[in-house]
Formats: sequence, C-alpha cells, structure tokens
Amino acid sequence: MKHARVIFEGREQKGTVVDDVITFSSGKTANISEIETWLPPFQPNKMIGLALNYADHADELGLEKPAEPVLFIKPNSSLVGHKGQVFYPDGATYMHYENELAVVIGKEGRNIKAENAMDFVSGYTIANDVTVRDFVNNWYRPPVRAKGHDTFGPMGPYYVDAADIPDVTNLELRTYVNGELRQQGNTKDLMYSIPEIIEFVSSFMTLEPYDVIWTGTPKGISHVHPGDVVRLEIDYLGSLENTIVDGRTEKVPTGGKGNEAGN
Amino acid sequence: MKHARVIFEGREQKGTVVDDVITFSSGKTANISEIETWLPPFQPNKMIGLALNYADHADELGLEKPAEPVLFIKPNSSLVGHKGQVFYPDGATYMHYENELAVVIGKEGRNIKAENAMDFVSGYTIANDVTVRDFVNNWYRPPVRAKGHDTFGPMGPYYVDAADIPDVTNLELRTYVNGELRQQGNTKDLMYSIPEIIEFVSSFMTLEPYDVIWTGTPKGISHVHPGDVVRLEIDYLGSLENTIVDGRTEKVPTGGKGNEAGN
Repeated sequence: MKHARVIFEGREQKGTVVDDVITFSSGKTANISEIETWLPPFQPNKMIGLALNYADHADELGLEKPAEPVLFIKPNSSLVGHKGQVFYPDGATYMHYENELAVVIGKEGRNIKAENAMDFVSGYTIANDVTVRDFVNNWYRPPVRAKGHDTFGPMGPYYVDAADIPDVTNLELRTYVNGELRQQGNTKDLMYSIPEIIEFVSSFMTLEPYDVIWTGTPKGISHVHPGDVVRLEIDYLGSLENTIVDGRTEKVPTGGKGNEAGN
Repeated sequence: MKHARVIFEGREQKGTVVDDVITFSSGKTANISEIETWLPPFQPNKMIGLALNYADHADELGLEKPAEPVLFIKPNSSLVGHKGQVFYPDGATYMHYENELAVVIGKEGRNIKAENAMDFVSGYTIANDVTVRDFVNNWYRPPVRAKGHDTFGPMGPYYVDAADIPDVTNLELRTYVNGELRQQGNTKDLMYSIPEIIEFVSSFMTLEPYDVIWTGTPKGISHVHPGDVVRLEIDYLGSLENTIVDGRTEKVPTGGKGNEAGN
C-alpha cells in the first residue's frame, strides 16, 4: 500500500494511493492531480544518512569503500515533499541531487543482528539527499551546511509498505533532470546492505519507529541550477519531483514541514 | 525560573525548582532528593553541536580556530537526564566528558542577524557532549558514532529561563570527576559567540522552538572510565551528574528518553 500525507481542501489529510486515485481516511477520493501540496509521507523521527555506499559513486568521487559505514544525520528541518521547491543557496556552484532508497524503521531496536534486521523495516520511500559540494571541505566533514539546508531533504511521494516490495536488493534508481536521464543505479550495488547498516547503527544507537536510513546514492551526480526540474524514480516507489529555485530571490520557506509534531 | 521534568510517584511530572524544593504543576511539592528519575528538562527538537568553539580546547587538541563554525547534529536518542547512566562502549579507550552551555531556542527564525539573535533564545541548560575519541578518525568526520551513542547526551538538570542569567558571556564551567576538578572554563572564551552561531546556523537552517545549540567545550578534557562519577556545573544552571557504567555488561537502555513525542 502507498501512503501519502497531503494538503487537500486546505488541510492536512492522509490517504492511500492506487493508480492515480487517493482515498482519504474519510473515504473520500480524489485524483492525485488535484493535490495542492504533498508533504513528506510521514513525520520522521531521526534521519541517518550514509555518505558513501555505492561502489560506482565512490569511484566517481575517487574514494574507496570506507572501513565502516560513514554516517551523518540529516535534520528534519530540511524536509520538503513531492513537488516542493529546493532552494539553491547563495555561494553555491555545485549543487547535486542524490537519489536514495530511504528505509523506514517500524519498531524500536538496539543491537539488532543483520539476520533479523529486516523485521525492523516497515517500509520505504524515495529521498533526495540534496548536497552542495562547495560546502563540503572534506569528504568526511560533518556535512551539516552541505546537506542540512532547509529544503535539501525532498522525500516522498509515498511511504510504501515493505510487504509490497518483492526484492529490495534489486531496485532500479533513475534520476532525470528536465527529462534527461542523468543517474541510474541499482540497490544490488549497495556496499553496505540494509541489514548490515541496521546492525551497525543499532550497535550504538537505538532505532525507533519512523527513524529513516538514507542508504546512499549511486553513480551519476551532476550539477543542477535554478529552474531545473529533478525527478527521482525508484522501482515500486513512484517518482519524486522537485524544482530548484533561486534561494536568494525566492521567499525563504519556514522549514520544519515534516516535523510539526516534533516539539 | 528553573524548570524540571522528572519521574515522581511513578509518572512524568513537570515542576519548577527553588533551592531544593520542586513544585509540580499540581501545586504539590517535594524535596529534590525524593526524585526517582530526572528526565532531560524538555523534549528537544533538533540539537546542533559545535565541534571546536573554545580557543583553549582547540589548542589542547592542536587545532586552529575553524574558518566557520564546525557543526554536527547530536541525535535526540542520545539523551539522558541528570543522574542517568552513561554507557562506556566496547572498544572505547578515550571517553571524554564535554561540559557545554546548551542554548534553547524559543521561537522560529531564519536568516536571523546577530544583533537580534538573543531574542530567539528562551533559556539554557547544561549538556555533556560525551565523546569517544577512538571513534573519531578525523576531527571533521561526521561524529555520529563518536558522539551519537545512546546515553552520550546527558542534559539538565534544569531548563533555566534566559531572563534569569545576568550575563551569558561570563559563565564559569567546571567539571569534576569523582569530586576532583578536571575542567574549568568560561563562556567569555567562546570563539563564535551565541549570536554569531545563531546567525550562521539560521542562514541556511530554520531554527525552531526547542532546538538546542551545544556551544562547545573549554579546555580540560580527560579520560573517564566505568565507575566514574562526572559532575558538570555551570553558573546559575545547577549541576548535572552522571555515572559511567560498563556498556558491555549493563542492561542496554532503550534510548530516546527525551524524545517520546518525537514521532
């Protein structure tokens, strides 16, 4: 089942999507073309990213497989939904999309072993780990400014139940910029698998419901600029489309869209 | 006013503390010695740390003042309250306390200027940015494992209203291990002041109510081991005491204590 969280008829509503029809909790239906605003499909708890997790992407950056997963934390205040705007900040030259399979945790766990790890996964969504590489002075530097900027966390359009994905180790990822295919990869090339990541993270950090793991991006990053429309697709998860706008002239968003209940 | 959040008579209660007496919302009072469990004094939204922000501490690590604030994100799942246990993990040799003034944001803001920044600060607390330096391979590496471990974020005991602090640029910090003074500093030695940090962070990231900025630690870090009692004091903010226990043999905490409502 595909779950969405949207603004419709002026208020936040949750619904499930089949083909192009969304059915709200109330039973009412609408065509998805009628949706005013797409929110991130759920309100994440914490979000943990992997900096380098596809061999082809590491090659592209001239880096080797890290000895252990290289983690960072993506702040919830960076979230924006499907169709939302991504702000190109002042001082940026190298803004990159990063198409990533986002793994959603369904129950609390600590010291989870890889062999049981998939029991802790409730679903998936698409995440765009937008990164401005000008602000990365060192590949291992805490990338708060490079990756934590408001709007640098598009996520969605749906939260898809894990049971609906036949084989999460074989999903194609494709990224289009203004309709042109720029990035293509497959989750079979993850250097650290989802169970290995969960085992590693939970060895020191409790995983909780609605924690999200951003599993890294494959080869094919390229520069994007204001006006570009970036569309990420992952098999079974739909397509997540966002527009880059000039952050110097557009109204600054208020942020925290995914996190209203976080206080 | 000093605000605390505790477990008392088997349930979570909030209260205000004067001298050694806590007055709960119900009007009931108790001596603070009767408190069963201290929770972090509020549930933070996101928490942003500064990696190097006291000149004497940078000297001690052989590092220079960074060209801009070096930020990282401290996960809420690392939080523990006053008197809580800090787990010394397997594989650690160099576990350090870091006594830090934690600045609590009171209202939402973006592109805040330094001259107005203090209007966005609602209060302060003490934070212990526990760090295992074995897990830091590079001073700028995202320190998720080094600083994000469950229990590596003691915070408290109180949230103190900003109005109660006469001069936040002149607060003494003192850290005692088993009663011995090990660390001493003063917020006048912050390399990036609180207004400068707020201006920098909010230039790219919306600050929201209950966001917390961990402003960095002064000189005087030293190794701690299971059995050690670490007590942090900051003028006007009270004292935050935690015990280090062996994380290999003690029951692993469930984590997320500060974040029950975060989902």
